[in-house]
Formats: sequence, C-alpha cells, structure tokens
Amino acid sequence: MKIPGATPRRGPKPNLQTRENLLKAGVKLLHEGGYTASGVKDIVGAAAVPKGSFYNHFDSKEVFGSEVVDYYFTSGLEELRALLSDSKIPAIERLKTYFNLRTAQFRAQGYIHGCMLGNLSLEVSDHSSLIRERIAVHFQTWNRLIENCIAEGQRAGDIAHHQTAPMLARFILNSWEGALLRMRVEKSDEPLTDFTRIVFDQLLM
Amino acid sequence: MKIPGATPRRGPKPNLQTRENLLKAGVKLLHEGGYTASGVKDIVGAAAVPKGSFYNHFDSKEVFGSEVVDYYFTSGLEELRALLSDSKIPAIERLKTYFNLRTAQFRAQGYIHGCMLGNLSLEVSDHSSLIRERIAVHFQTWNRLIENCIAEGQRAGDIAHHQTAPMLARFILNSWEGALLRMRVEKSDEPLTDFTRIVFDQLLM
Repeated sequence: MKIPGATPRRGPKPNLQTRENLLKAGVKLLHEGGYTASGVKDIVGAAAVPKGSFYNHFDSKEVFGSEVVDYYFTSGLEELRALLSDSKIPAIERLKTYFNLRTAQFRAQGYIHGCMLGNLSLEVSDHSSLIRERIAVHFQTWNRLIENCIAEGQRAGDIAHHQTAPMLARFILNSWEGALLRMRVEKSDEPLTDFTRIVFDQLLM
Repeated sequence: MKIPGATPRRGPKPNLQTRENLLKAGVKLLHEGGYTASGVKDIVGAAAVPKGSFYNHFDSKEVFGSEVVDYYFTSGLEELRALLSDSKIPAIERLKTYFNLRTAQFRAQGYIHGCMLGNLSLEVSDHSSLIRERIAVHFQTWNRLIENCIAEGQRAGDIAHHQTAPMLARFILNSWEGALLRMRVEKSDEPLTDFTRIVFDQLLM
C-alpha cells in the first residue's frame, strides 16, 4: 500500500504493515516447509504483497530468515516467561505445566511442524552464520528461563541437586528438541511422554 | 557405462555401478545440504552420470531419497552392531565407547552435518510418508541395539533399573539427536558432553 502524498524517494516507502505481513507469512511457510522450500515468490504470495516490496524491507532472503526466527521466538516469549517465572507456583510444577501444555498442542496438531528453531538448526546452521547466531541467542534465552526455574526449585527443595541447574537446563532443552524430532517421525506422543516421565520422575527428583 | 553386446531394450540397461554412484552422491549431498536443496541436477553432477540415467534407477526424487536413507543407515549398521553387541565388553562400557567415538568424530569435523536421519526427520517427515517410514524403521533398529545393550547391562547389574530398557533406549536416542541439533547451532561439543555426563553419571547409574 502506498501512502498518498508521500514525498517521492528512491523506491516505495517501506510500510510497516507490509513488513509485518511478510514476517507472519515467513513464520508460517518456514515453519511448515522449511527455509529452502520457501521461495521469496511463495512468501510474497502468502503475504499478498508485490514481489518488489520484499526487497524494500529485507536485503536478502537470509536477512529475512534471521528476522523470521526473531519474530517466531519473540512472539511466544512473553507467554513462556510468564509461565516459567510465576513465583506463586512451585518451580517443578511450572516446568511440568509448560511441557504438558506443549505436548497437548502437538497432539492436537497431529505431531507436525515441531519447533521452528529446531528445524532451522538442522537445515540452516551449516550454511548461514547469520541465522545460526539468531537461533543460538534464542535457545540461550529459552534455556536461561528453564535454568532459573530449576535453580529456584533446587533452592526450595522441589528439585534435586544431582547436577547443576545450567547443565540440567541445557540437557532438558536439547532432549526436548530431540523428543520433538522423533515425534515428527513416529507421529505419536510417545517421545514426549518418555521425555516427561524421565525428566520429572528421575532427572529432577 | 554400457555393456558391449547387450540386447537392445527400451532405454539403457540400468548399471549397478551407476546406481551405487548416485546413492553415494545422494548421501553426501543430502547429508551436507538437505533434501530440498539437493536437486536431481546436482546429484547426477556429483555422481558424474548423465541426467537421464537417474530415472532409469529411481522413479522419482522421493524414491531416491528413501533409498539414500537406507544406504546411509545400512552402511554404518555393521559397525554399530559390532560395537554395541560385543559381549566381551560390559554393556555400559560399549555404550560409553559408542557415544564417545561419535563425539570425537563430530569434534574432528567441526560440529557440522550431524545425523542424516535426524536432519531429514525435521525436513521431510511432514511431506513424504515414504521417506518418513524408512527413517522410522532405521531409528527402531538403532533403538533396539541400544535397548538390548541396556537390558544386558541391567541383567549384569552395570545399569540401574529405575526405568525399563525400552524407555531408556528411546529417551537416550532421542536426547542424542537433540544434543546433535544443539551442537550444530553452538558449534561446540558442550551439548554432547552434557549428554554423556547426565546419561552415564545419573540416568543409567
């Protein structure tokens, strides 16, 4: 959409709504089909904007990919933070609730799509340091929230001290990504229920 | 290569060496770049065979992908089986040796490529039931070898009975895939050493 009466400049003025629509379409397409399979043509088509407008907002598909990763993660971050940082609820219960909610969501969806950070980790990490570094930052943010929750549970005595909170948090997050990977193949929640049982009945006990 | 004096038939006679070369090129390209990024043109180029010969051997790229998955897994299966089934060595030591060897290999390679079964699980599972089912079968074979090893260790008293061998084996394999995923992002062996420490110092103890 052009803004009537805008001062003429080189190329159309970037429109924030167009940018948002491109990022939203990018999240959907990259999550469902992956990075390589989602062409700029598909993305502008899904966002219903002219192809030229893509390059008004993003210097390249790679830059777009890195911003899609940011958009995806930050759009879920507030809910994640609220859930894992709610000090009214015991830390161990917050963690259980979080993984149980995610399991229920994947079950409802039919065990598809998984986690976009995980998907792009395997598809893009060796080929784009720009995208890889954004994924790394978001994994660290997510990891830190789990770690804080575990450390709080350890201080309160809900969670055992067999391992340090940072190592437990890293292992749990990585194992969750692995469980989602196997879920995609098996099309069953067994990998997720195995995860929950071992993490909550043994690892943190 | 054509066989001199062969009876004329519709299309050139499929040549087993060509087929093998295509599969080997497929393993390399799909492992390094993924399924979508590896076009038939790239594959025949890497195998140094004419494009037409691809379709003498494989009905489609999808069929080829499923055979590449089989070729990749079976080419490592004998070594995997030998390592995990060597009853002269305590079961827990076999498992440690296996994961330590793989960790050393990934370290030497610079934490790239990961496991092709894992990579294609995320890239292809939702889009090709043919390839997904082959991945599922190979994960089950791999899982069974780990499970047998754990069950043997449990009978011998090397490995604790907190969980059943099938569930431990599934969790360990899935967590390993998750550790490889995070390794690709972090370009470090921390996810693999976290895995080893938690699995061998706590989970199986």
